[in-house]
Amino acid sequence: MIQRIGENTLHFENGPCLLSWASVAGKKESEGPLGGYFDVCHEDTSLGDKSWEQAESHLQDESINVALQKASLQPEDMDFIFAGDLLNQCISSTFGLRDLQIPFLGQYGACSTMAQALGMASVFVESGAARRAAAVTSSHFCSAERQFRMPLEYGGQRPPTAQWTATASGSILLGKEGNGSIRVREVSFGRITDLGISDANNMGAAMAPAAASTITGYLRDTGSSPDDFDLILTGDLGRVGSDLLHTLLEKENIHIEGKHNDGGLMLYDRDQQDVHAGGSGCGCSASVLCSIILKKMEEKKLKRVLFVATGALMSPTSSQQGESIPGIAHLIFLESGTNG
Amino acid sequence: MIQRIGENTLHFENGPCLLSWASVAGKKESEGPLGGYFDVCHEDTSLGDKSWEQAESHLQDESINVALQKASLQPEDMDFIFAGDLLNQCISSTFGLRDLQIPFLGQYGACSTMAQALGMASVFVESGAARRAAAVTSSHFCSAERQFRMPLEYGGQRPPTAQWTATASGSILLGKEGNGSIRVREVSFGRITDLGISDANNMGAAMAPAAASTITGYLRDTGSSPDDFDLILTGDLGRVGSDLLHTLLEKENIHIEGKHNDGGLMLYDRDQQDVHAGGSGCGCSASVLCSIILKKMEEKKLKRVLFVATGALMSPTSSQQGESIPGIAHLIFLESGTNG
Repeated sequence: MIQRIGENTLHFENGPCLLSWASVAGKKESEGPLGGYFDVCHEDTSLGDKSWEQAESHLQDESINVALQKASLQPEDMDFIFAGDLLNQCISSTFGLRDLQIPFLGQYGACSTMAQALGMASVFVESGAARRAAAVTSSHFCSAERQFRMPLEYGGQRPPTAQWTATASGSILLGKEGNGSIRVREVSFGRITDLGISDANNMGAAMAPAAASTITGYLRDTGSSPDDFDLILTGDLGRVGSDLLHTLLEKENIHIEGKHNDGGLMLYDRDQQDVHAGGSGCGCSASVLCSIILKKMEEKKLKRVLFVATGALMSPTSSQQGESIPGIAHLIFLESGTNG
Repeated sequence: MIQRIGENTLHFENGPCLLSWASVAGKKESEGPLGGYFDVCHEDTSLGDKSWEQAESHLQDESINVALQKASLQPEDMDFIFAGDLLNQCISSTFGLRDLQIPFLGQYGACSTMAQALGMASVFVESGAARRAAAVTSSHFCSAERQFRMPLEYGGQRPPTAQWTATASGSILLGKEGNGSIRVREVSFGRITDLGISDANNMGAAMAPAAASTITGYLRDTGSSPDDFDLILTGDLGRVGSDLLHTLLEKENIHIEGKHNDGGLMLYDRDQQDVHAGGSGCGCSASVLCSIILKKMEEKKLKRVLFVATGALMSPTSSQQGESIPGIAHLIFLESGTNG
């Protein structure tokens, strides 16, 4: 049963169970601090495909199939798949997942897509609309660079505030009941927040106000505080956005230091890997969640986690037309119980 | 309560109620056979805005606000808004709806987006996740042409199979209870169907197999036949796709002649308006549904309607890379009761 709490939070009485999850990572991501946690690591960023776009589809295809294998499920066992990505018309998802023949619902929330898809899958499972549902996202550095910025061959300079689009995918399978010990307890879908930032090389700053708004709203709705959680994982604010998030929340007298980390800061070694402000892309927070975070939750090293994925809802066209960058953040409360 | 029927249909015991709806149309659409049914008709395709993209956002902004006014509701009365469009990164929706401050969930199903968004809103309302939810889509001929095909100034030739992207938007507000007599009874979300068609100037043919698959599945799940409905409205197959749909369904011994119409065939006078195979775009089926169809349902001239919106899940990049065009179709069963 789904209960509305406060202004904008959904509480799940049963709580959809995580049946399995999987992460697939590219070369740079595999060489980073989380390399040992990914299910599949690729040495070749092209994955042997003819285009970067096909390689990105391939990442999704792999991550959902590994997740299905881990849960000993077939595609026909899944009632819905919620998926999205950064490419125009979400082609990584449609081409990556078309062979599965699972009813498909394309989601677009930019880098917030993993939280959006997971929240959707949760509502469908909790309500009985689905027995089982999947959430999948991906991003690829090379397909994103040429679509959003410049062809790789151009060799453009990146300012210090810029983030590095992760080559990665994450998938999660949800069911009403399962052997797993991790459940989705609550969801808070966000509003579009636009404070007028228009620097497309500073997405972290554009998205931080949305994260602050969603976190503040959730804590108010549920009467909870950061101390009630083991981790607040944003994705992907990077260094600039994370600092700004702390500042914004402090104004509301909410202190997340010691509890907060960011997918964009965890995926790479910023001292060694030249990613400037950190990682980004739908696949960044998804692959961090579906590797080290869920692993630690399974091992009960983390029990109560807020996953807050953030998206910048702009396009190159909107930026070229002088528009600001609308941000959004969706929040998922995951809990690792004692029944696992 | 949501009940799963057969393989892939959701039955709503209560049935979310249509609180209001609205349609906004451009100049060519207003000059067509449905001109008298739209809530707002624009003489100026730019809507006085500086870019076609801003004009398209403006269409969404207008249609949702007219729908809110008709239901005497404020944006804060809505718990969620499900919206999408054809533009890269769905910017028509994000920029058109950001000021409303309604929790926003971006949907991408190409021209099937209105059915997808309406189905999502239905699941959220029926499950109690939302008290009220909105579904909104749009398309704009000029923003779509320059993104998917050529700049208007190029004056490219269009083959007879090509469809004309509608300049239009439609919005529907759903609630658990309301004064309206029209309810969403069932939803069948589709699978990606790809028979290998790769001609981006023949979207109707690429989408018809998806429509056939979703309709066949729904009739099988519910044990119903086309005779049980007053109208099967596809959107937007146009002439080529509609003919192909009839042929495909006849192979399954399903005959929809006399029951079937298509949004892409209804929106324009094909003899007079030079749209070749018919209309298309997220705004086409949405504006047809939110004008003449819901009006006739309100008047009880139509009681049981299947709205089957179809989408072509390609991008210019995927087509240029030689990929085929994956299609999808989502089905909504709308019923006009006697309690209105």
